[in-house]
Amino acid sequence: MSFTHSQDTIVALATSPGVNGAIAVIRLSGPEAVSITDSVFKGKDLKSQASHTIHFGTIRDGDQVIDEVLVSLFIAPHSYTKENVVEISTHNSKYIIERVLTLLMKKGARAAKAGEFTLRAFLNGGLDLSQAEAVADLIASNSAASHQIAMQQMRGGFSNQLKQLREDLVHFASLIELELDFAEEDVEFANRDQLRLLIEKIYQVIYRLIQSFEQGNVLKNGVPVVIAGKPNVGKSTLLNALLNEERAIVSEIAGTTRDTIEDEINIHGVTFRFIDTAGIRETADIIEAKGVERTMEKIKQARLIIYLFDPLQDHIASVQEQIAEVEALQIPFVTIINKSDLLSDAQRSEYAALNPIYISAKEQVGIEELKDELLNQVNLSQINTDDTIVTNIRHLEALQNTREALEKVLFGIDNPITSDFLAIDIRQALHHLGEITGTVTTDDLLENIFSKFCIGK
Amino acid sequence: MSFTHSQDTIVALATSPGVNGAIAVIRLSGPEAVSITDSVFKGKDLKSQASHTIHFGTIRDGDQVIDEVLVSLFIAPHSYTKENVVEISTHNSKYIIERVLTLLMKKGARAAKAGEFTLRAFLNGGLDLSQAEAVADLIASNSAASHQIAMQQMRGGFSNQLKQLREDLVHFASLIELELDFAEEDVEFANRDQLRLLIEKIYQVIYRLIQSFEQGNVLKNGVPVVIAGKPNVGKSTLLNALLNEERAIVSEIAGTTRDTIEDEINIHGVTFRFIDTAGIRETADIIEAKGVERTMEKIKQARLIIYLFDPLQDHIASVQEQIAEVEALQIPFVTIINKSDLLSDAQRSEYAALNPIYISAKEQVGIEELKDELLNQVNLSQINTDDTIVTNIRHLEALQNTREALEKVLFGIDNPITSDFLAIDIRQALHHLGEITGTVTTDDLLENIFSKFCIGK
Repeated sequence: MSFTHSQDTIVALATSPGVNGAIAVIRLSGPEAVSITDSVFKGKDLKSQASHTIHFGTIRDGDQVIDEVLVSLFIAPHSYTKENVVEISTHNSKYIIERVLTLLMKKGARAAKAGEFTLRAFLNGGLDLSQAEAVADLIASNSAASHQIAMQQMRGGFSNQLKQLREDLVHFASLIELELDFAEEDVEFANRDQLRLLIEKIYQVIYRLIQSFEQGNVLKNGVPVVIAGKPNVGKSTLLNALLNEERAIVSEIAGTTRDTIEDEINIHGVTFRFIDTAGIRETADIIEAKGVERTMEKIKQARLIIYLFDPLQDHIASVQEQIAEVEALQIPFVTIINKSDLLSDAQRSEYAALNPIYISAKEQVGIEELKDELLNQVNLSQINTDDTIVTNIRHLEALQNTREALEKVLFGIDNPITSDFLAIDIRQALHHLGEITGTVTTDDLLENIFSKFCIGK
Repeated sequence: MSFTHSQDTIVALATSPGVNGAIAVIRLSGPEAVSITDSVFKGKDLKSQASHTIHFGTIRDGDQVIDEVLVSLFIAPHSYTKENVVEISTHNSKYIIERVLTLLMKKGARAAKAGEFTLRAFLNGGLDLSQAEAVADLIASNSAASHQIAMQQMRGGFSNQLKQLREDLVHFASLIELELDFAEEDVEFANRDQLRLLIEKIYQVIYRLIQSFEQGNVLKNGVPVVIAGKPNVGKSTLLNALLNEERAIVSEIAGTTRDTIEDEINIHGVTFRFIDTAGIRETADIIEAKGVERTMEKIKQARLIIYLFDPLQDHIASVQEQIAEVEALQIPFVTIINKSDLLSDAQRSEYAALNPIYISAKEQVGIEELKDELLNQVNLSQINTDDTIVTNIRHLEALQNTREALEKVLFGIDNPITSDFLAIDIRQALHHLGEITGTVTTDDLLENIFSKFCIGK
């Protein structure tokens, strides 16, 4: 894919392929989008219609009617790509879609590559790079939290925050570069105190964004959880109790299907992802398995451990011993007493000091309390999804590089180095900041980002 | 589902669910479609916008932005359903789709049932029943022929033809019923000669439509074909040669996926469907298997047999014997000599009298000639898809019932029966004609037709 402005008119199916839909939407973008569509459309003359209007007619291959369609027109620059865009709403028949796509290609359109519509939106200034990336995140979002972060980023929250800071820094960079022209005269156009203040301000913002990554990542990809405990304490029953309720809720909304949710639950918008510890969950004992390195690797990926006891199997001394060993892992954990409906009063007072959650996985008792505790453990009160949160590893790297360059600039201000070295460090910081919003790009970077999009986006 | 005009506003996802699309379209129809959408939309005031216009804005749940969307407005009666219709184009995220659907339902929309949009189009006079049925056929069409038949029917070809004839007959029916009012005076308002001419004209049309059913059915569902021949003559290789080429062609068009085509090929718009004769195709011998009833049942479903010989295995006497036995089945067949690249000149002249097609399935030689012959055998020159062709078993039954009633009317004209019996027979013919276009319907019939539609159509 070439990443310069292209004069081609591109075409692709924009909706999901599949047999369960009523309609499909075929999208064209480019200077000839309207005229190519018009050449196969019988109805009004599309070339003389206003932007943002819809027209009923037929798509014809010669005399043959391929379909009755609705054509939506978006005239440049009032479109997603800032080019002429046409959306043709057809009946959702694979045969019709293929015929219409083939026909439009015969009339001069070219099959769009993955992400090419959004690439054009970026190249034509409709979106910056972090916004374009957020479009893909938005489509992939499957929880309230990941959706909110992507939406915030797509609507420019991230970019706006960085844009102003970057502009301020560009201003200082030019002043310092101006000093270089007058190097022999030893002037200082850029006030070093103001520069330090600005750098420190940017540093604070960058630092907070880097800090947000861990939580952002958790919100985007889900909180990794392990259910652990000795064999036969009811781990599998608990997992099913959590998952089944979720599945029932999900299937309630008519008209939407949802791919099988594998070992994920959503609690008040936060996804908890149960790590498959294979052996452990079903048969082994987290403590006994300690020696098994591979299993321990899995457990260490967890951000949260649900540790389950069966009071009919374990006695309090063993429970205390197990808890001590879990604590040694330094991963937050929730202590659960299963089969609590069978608990004697004596046992109940023994366990009270552990402050556990009492459940019965089999009887579905205490599951809501457990969910509240899971939410509580990931401490989401710290996270305000209205804040800008970094979830993209590319952004994290650019931010880390920016931070490094800013540290050099601060060092340069406080130490006797020449303006030209200072200018280089500032340029370096600007470069890395620019990578996030796409002010600075390479073909490899764009290829990498847009090839992950689906065709039609 | 109630089949009276409903004042509910209905909502559903109109595009295919699935992760590979860029956009999804949510459709509402009903008196409150615009106001419900407006209540969750931030952008222009949708209630004051013109029909067939598109508006950019956000869908919000309180302060929270769910998505940036395009809203298309169709104001009654200028829409598919003849009601107010809104189409909301969202990002194709399952999370977003569920949120938007839930939100619209909270604001007063109801989840649409399967086919309910098209049902409303029918109830509100936008489509007659045969046109509504054609919409489902159109979506399901997977070949040029089936597509063309459905398109012709959706665009009213079928209905128009019947509508005028039915009106003429209604005219006669009322004249005859008028005679009943003057029964004592023995008058004849309805000219019996003109009536006979009309009935004969209708009879001709009905007869031709009934005749079209067999071919229509073949075009819609594909021509059933069996590849037969002794074991190891290359039947499986030939089938793969036919199927693989097809798959390669199909996968060429970018942006569309196609479900696995199981044993179907498409030759110039006609589908040939290879019947799985299990045993036969791979291991058995059509002639030897004659006794095996179940296999023979399969073969008898075929409209065409491809009978394959291997000249290295068979000698001419055996070939002639096999051909005689295939002929006895009275199903059209094509004689194929496989491995023709290994044929000696002597063999070639021996076989010439059979007028076979020479192929090499392995070397992909002669496959195009075979395809031409398959098309030739189903004799499509007889079929003009511009003619009205009946493909629907419900229509066939109504037509057959109409024919029966018409025969009674003709008998009544030529024999001394009273006007009241004649009137009953004419009413009967009108009833069955009306069933096709939906002038006469029952809830069961509508339930049966529309429940087969997908949700959102």
